[in-house]
Amino acid sequence: MIIANTIDDVRKKVREWKTSGFTVGLVPTMGALHEGHASLISAAVGGCDRVVASVFVNPTQFSAGEDLDSYPRDFERDCRILEKKGCDMVFHPSVEEMYPEGFGTYINLETEMTKQLCGKSRPGHFRGVCTVVSKLFNIVGPDRAYFGEKDAQQLAVIRRMVKDMNFNIQIVGCPTVRESDGLAKSSRNMYLNYEEREAATVLYRSIEAAKALIRDGSCMLSSKVVALMTDIISSEPAARVDYIQAVDGMTLLPKESLEKGDLVAMAVYIGKTRLIDNFTIGG
Amino acid sequence: MIIANTIDDVRKKVREWKTSGFTVGLVPTMGALHEGHASLISAAVGGCDRVVASVFVNPTQFSAGEDLDSYPRDFERDCRILEKKGCDMVFHPSVEEMYPEGFGTYINLETEMTKQLCGKSRPGHFRGVCTVVSKLFNIVGPDRAYFGEKDAQQLAVIRRMVKDMNFNIQIVGCPTVRESDGLAKSSRNMYLNYEEREAATVLYRSIEAAKALIRDGSCMLSSKVVALMTDIISSEPAARVDYIQAVDGMTLLPKESLEKGDLVAMAVYIGKTRLIDNFTIGG
Repeated sequence: MIIANTIDDVRKKVREWKTSGFTVGLVPTMGALHEGHASLISAAVGGCDRVVASVFVNPTQFSAGEDLDSYPRDFERDCRILEKKGCDMVFHPSVEEMYPEGFGTYINLETEMTKQLCGKSRPGHFRGVCTVVSKLFNIVGPDRAYFGEKDAQQLAVIRRMVKDMNFNIQIVGCPTVRESDGLAKSSRNMYLNYEEREAATVLYRSIEAAKALIRDGSCMLSSKVVALMTDIISSEPAARVDYIQAVDGMTLLPKESLEKGDLVAMAVYIGKTRLIDNFTIGG
Repeated sequence: MIIANTIDDVRKKVREWKTSGFTVGLVPTMGALHEGHASLISAAVGGCDRVVASVFVNPTQFSAGEDLDSYPRDFERDCRILEKKGCDMVFHPSVEEMYPEGFGTYINLETEMTKQLCGKSRPGHFRGVCTVVSKLFNIVGPDRAYFGEKDAQQLAVIRRMVKDMNFNIQIVGCPTVRESDGLAKSSRNMYLNYEEREAATVLYRSIEAAKALIRDGSCMLSSKVVALMTDIISSEPAARVDYIQAVDGMTLLPKESLEKGDLVAMAVYIGKTRLIDNFTIGG
């Protein structure tokens, strides 16, 4: 596996691949890789001739007071996982390589889409995501790019950005990978101590209860679904709801009556750790 | 010359060209073409195997109360000029093709660069320019793109955006084309009545006087240069200064003492028509 630290090195190698007629897949990550990321690499390896992963903790998508400094970093371990999964090149730039002096251009989805859900509690987050993802798109020039459905709002925002900005790139969403007790895999799970790790299962328990409520067909009112989930989360002393919201899966606008394709998403603090999870109706 | 109205048609043709190993040049325009645009096409024809021009009056770069509705449009005449100059394809999309329902992604240079000069009197203008130019870059995928030095701030902003967003595109600036009396060619010159057309020469006269002042070496103080130009413009009753400012040619930050590469730029109303012009020290 090639390790590239500069934009020029990535471009040179991708140009070679394209000249040989290979398709290229991109998996953007912030490192601290887990089985969720590994599944994205596997999907990319299955769908493209060559696969590039980026490992870059992107400062512009962290708000002040968030965990930019403490965000877990272990590049050597990341490389072992990527290589094992069949990744061909990892792009691991410095902050200076991505944001040189005088940098000032940002790309932002300015509609309600980025003001719902995580957008409410993380102002500027999706501006940072859109900016770094656009840069990675322009650096790598992939045919396809792979994102996890766990970050449902991110996936919807990127799909909209790609459409709006006419990126000639297919966006592939991949299912959330879970621990055996249902907790969604996340780099932030490693912040949890033993008791918090136990408490964190409450997110998935609330999702399972909501799915059951919807499945028996008795209730498609989003207020009742959200109320049930809120009750379950609140029963766990270590948990504090940031938001639980039911929205249209494409526009992310709030829905009163739920239908297939709608998204129920939540962010919950377990101690000081903010975890997100979601499910799609009929998904 | 191919006339393409859809993004798909542009992509299909450019893909053919690239498969044949041709380089592609892009000349973005808002139509109402004049010799300035023609010189951009000539430069592109000289530098690339195939040339695409876009003709699109971009609504997002007009502020409220500006001349979006009255902006001159004559597509058939534009096509004759483009074809004569050797353009291979003109992209002439509808507003709906470029900004479909639900559109909401904008790209913006958020530093002081877009707050100086025209950015002061045209809030949101460069956000619209950056957005549409990025879209055109992604639609056409050119090797090189050509812009006039008359729009000096636009050129500097686009250079910065290309660097920040890692577009793999060479930006080529082309010299301002002038009428025989020095007035910079502009689509907006056709707004001028006979008396205003006479009065409009005051912009170039002020530039010539400033250049002479600088050339004899007696003065490199921007305040004196700007004062001289302001005096000359003010001597013309039909003219009203919007701004005259001396800035660093790259960062567009104000300069007190001028040196090679600095930019002296102005916007002046002649009646109701807003004209811009500029010169670069030692340029």
